[in-house]
Amino acid sequence: MIKITIGSKTFEIKEINVTIWNEFIHEQTDPKVASIYPEGMHMTIAEGLEPYGFNIRTATFNEPEHGLTENVLNETDVLIWWGHLVHDQVDDQIVERVYERVLNGMGLIVLHSGHFSKIFKKLMGTTCDLKWREADERTRLWVVDPAHPITNGIDEYIELEEEEMYGEFFDVPAPDRLIFISWFQGGEVFRSGCAYYRRLGKIFYFQPGHETYPTYHNEEIIKVIANAVKWAASPHGPTPTFGYAEPLEEID
Amino acid sequence: MIKITIGSKTFEIKEINVTIWNEFIHEQTDPKVASIYPEGMHMTIAEGLEPYGFNIRTATFNEPEHGLTENVLNETDVLIWWGHLVHDQVDDQIVERVYERVLNGMGLIVLHSGHFSKIFKKLMGTTCDLKWREADERTRLWVVDPAHPITNGIDEYIELEEEEMYGEFFDVPAPDRLIFISWFQGGEVFRSGCAYYRRLGKIFYFQPGHETYPTYHNEEIIKVIANAVKWAASPHGPTPTFGYAEPLEEID
Amino acid sequence: MIKITIGSKTFEIKEINVTIWNEFIHEQTDPKVASIYPEGMHMTIAEGLEPYGFNIRTATFNEPEHGLTENVLNETDVLIWWGHLVHDQVDDQIVERVYERVLNGMGLIVLHSGHFSKIFKKLMGTTCDLKWREADERTRLWVVDPAHPITNGIDEYIELEEEEMYGEFFDVPAPDRLIFISWFQGGEVFRSGCAYYRRLGKIFYFQPGHETYPTYHNEEIIKVIANAVKWAASPHGPTPTFGYAEPLEEID
Amino acid sequence: MIKITIGSKTFEIKEINVTIWNEFIHEQTDPKVASIYPEGMHMTIAEGLEPYGFNIRTATFNEPEHGLTENVLNETDVLIWWGHLVHDQVDDQIVERVYERVLNGMGLIVLHSGHFSKIFKKLMGTTCDLKWREADERTRLWVVDPAHPITNGIDEYIELEEEEMYGEFFDVPAPDRLIFISWFQGGEVFRSGCAYYRRLGKIFYFQPGHETYPTYHNEEIIKVIANAVKWAASPHGPTPTFGYAEPLEEID
Repeated sequence: MIKITIGSKTFEIKEINVTIWNEFIHEQTDPKVASIYPEGMHMTIAEGLEPYGFNIRTATFNEPEHGLTENVLNETDVLIWWGHLVHDQVDDQIVERVYERVLNGMGLIVLHSGHFSKIFKKLMGTTCDLKWREADERTRLWVVDPAHPITNGIDEYIELEEEEMYGEFFDVPAPDRLIFISWFQGGEVFRSGCAYYRRLGKIFYFQPGHETYPTYHNEEIIKVIANAVKWAASPHGPTPTFGYAEPLEEID
Repeated sequence: MIKITIGSKTFEIKEINVTIWNEFIHEQTDPKVASIYPEGMHMTIAEGLEPYGFNIRTATFNEPEHGLTENVLNETDVLIWWGHLVHDQVDDQIVERVYERVLNGMGLIVLHSGHFSKIFKKLMGTTCDLKWREADERTRLWVVDPAHPITNGIDEYIELEEEEMYGEFFDVPAPDRLIFISWFQGGEVFRSGCAYYRRLGKIFYFQPGHETYPTYHNEEIIKVIANAVKWAASPHGPTPTFGYAEPLEEID
Repeated sequence: MIKITIGSKTFEIKEINVTIWNEFIHEQTDPKVASIYPEGMHMTIAEGLEPYGFNIRTATFNEPEHGLTENVLNETDVLIWWGHLVHDQVDDQIVERVYERVLNGMGLIVLHSGHFSKIFKKLMGTTCDLKWREADERTRLWVVDPAHPITNGIDEYIELEEEEMYGEFFDVPAPDRLIFISWFQGGEVFRSGCAYYRRLGKIFYFQPGHETYPTYHNEEIIKVIANAVKWAASPHGPTPTFGYAEPLEEID
Repeated sequence: MIKITIGSKTFEIKEINVTIWNEFIHEQTDPKVASIYPEGMHMTIAEGLEPYGFNIRTATFNEPEHGLTENVLNETDVLIWWGHLVHDQVDDQIVERVYERVLNGMGLIVLHSGHFSKIFKKLMGTTCDLKWREADERTRLWVVDPAHPITNGIDEYIELEEEEMYGEFFDVPAPDRLIFISWFQGGEVFRSGCAYYRRLGKIFYFQPGHETYPTYHNEEIIKVIANAVKWAASPHGPTPTFGYAEPLEEID
């Protein structure tokens, strides 16, 4: 927390610690993906977020504890998650650790194929299944909740020339706030920007980001992610107490 | 389905198959509970629901497969769930079976201490923890969504002379519809009637029903449960298809 | 209410009184519309709903009190509303009368250009504005809440070869339940099936139905309207009392 | 906007312009109220908010245009509203002006008896009626959405020794987020902290603040209002365009 006094007024600047988690496998095994993201999607996202002033670190699947040690998570305000090929190999203990941190106030931004990650499915309580198609088709993400800070600085829609289609029905609980709906050239729609609140934690699912397209080089997509980081890092309230409770009033 | 023709009009009556699941342990081990529910809470609830015309069966923890075989669940439109002492001993396979049935359209009504059941926690994606106190205190369940059919025939509130206090914060996702809020004499409030939709399934959590009080002998409480059965059995829509999808429109 | 006893069980059949309101002007002034709906859209909708067993009457703008007398409204369980050209000429007193009935439990189904009706804007509290285009384009209404009874008997989507485009941003409150999202050939999406609850009343906005297309001759569209009638006519709870209230507990 | 550079990082501080509107009549006509709020509730709230660094001005009913000129509203990020005796005498043109500003992104915080203000009723689309009682009774506002920034720095509940009772049913749309539920000594509950989104605007209704109690001298109450100001001033997204729209894709 940085405090700045201007005249009689004091402003607080809260630094935001972001950890970008990427399984980082496609980029090391698929030349097409490597050509788009030579250092991994996490590094491209990190570079994109650089101008926004966050404290950024990255973590990947192959690191010890997937790079998500207790220390790292305790120092993380918002965790960004991209996974696909090895969802099932993510250690249940680490998933549990992330889960506890989300319930206790860490923000979580789940990108694209992360819909099938253990952590997202656990938090949603549903299968998070959907329709998909890789057909190099055009998509357009329409803002349907322009009051939400995640849409700040975005036009009425974001157009991507090529993305993977994700289509309804998306097997998640109805989002607490539905922010983007996507149109796909092939005839489908998708709830592509979904905000959820779980105890003290804020969660945002954002659909774009197939590994074979340069989506995370797109400034508008990065701006949405940056906005989501700020939103997910916004302050929360009291940590609840659970269990036996003494009465606050006399009971006759 | 019964079809009835009156003059030129045909009406359809859909019979509703209800399974009442009770762990049925308190009643067999605690004389106080046995005196209130000599045949078990499930039998009291079944008797209460009798006038509503449902086809009712019961199932309990100690039956093979906890009484919830594939056949039973496939023939169940709405499952009512009361559990407390042996949540952790409920077979994960049976939980998975119930889960699949809910996602595919079976209604689920979770009563009182069932908030900590495996099935409810799995569907919610949160811990479902709360505050509690057994102090023989008065509670009043206020209707806050009188458009909902679950409140049909109920007054503005239901008063119970003695219930266990459950207090906020209740660690569940914000309900898709919040129907009752409870006032407790000791100074707490609780979101005591919560409706959720998960894929094709409708879920209702209803707070009253501590084993040492005669709550399920109360006609208003039973009426809420009967209304919830009708609501949870109301028709659903298409079973979604997931996975690869051919385009519906030409992609240039 | 019809009661039917089968063996020991008694079933209740609630007859549903539907009033279909249509301003009925396009059909009398535009030959193209007249050729599709020679007796008016209200009559086509009435014929479509005939097999569903409702008691149906119609009302139109030019009738005294627009056909919506106190008696008619008091006997109406669900009001269907289609208007376009003369929204502003609908008598404020009649709007107030409909408004009171909705808050007191009458269902309301607002079709297509009815989004700009006085009654819908008053109930929403927003302008209900949107984007539009008449370009004979294809649309597809995707089910995004298949647990909702309004989607019963519908496939994963409804396809209409030609409809008017309505596009986001749709200036309404986020629906209490979002049931359909539409895809349009020209590149837009729209929240085309929106359910709202206001005090005792249930409201459904449904986008299809431009006067120059035969949309209300489509059986799937009629099925959605029929489902919406049943849902909007489902029972509600207690009529609230307002104003000064005596305490229910002693205040020290 | 103030920009601050620390090392390689630039932070932006957005100043927030708050206008506190108070009808300011009770304080000038009722000695009891005058003794609690000698300069008016707006001045007490302004003093309370002073440490939070907002740019604050006030406006009252008796000023020309109620103090809410075009200029004032255009320079207002968040408007706080307290009214009671003269709701009906507030000029419809000013209400319309505030309404337009809210839809276009100004935040609105409605306090206590402001539930019956023209602006709140217009935005809600319902009567906003409720139960009430002045009986010097204790109330406790429980946090039920601790992820929300409005609850930052607040304990699990706020206790007020004396407040007016407001009780359910509260005739508003179900809030987009329900943040506080109040317990009252006399036996009622109330949804006392309700957040709504309408187009670009964020709205917060907060129940406490009867004129005969020193509620706005309470630091926790002021903290909630300060949090609500920050939340309601948080950035919004694109201003929607409405009306005829050219297709974005070729239509065959």
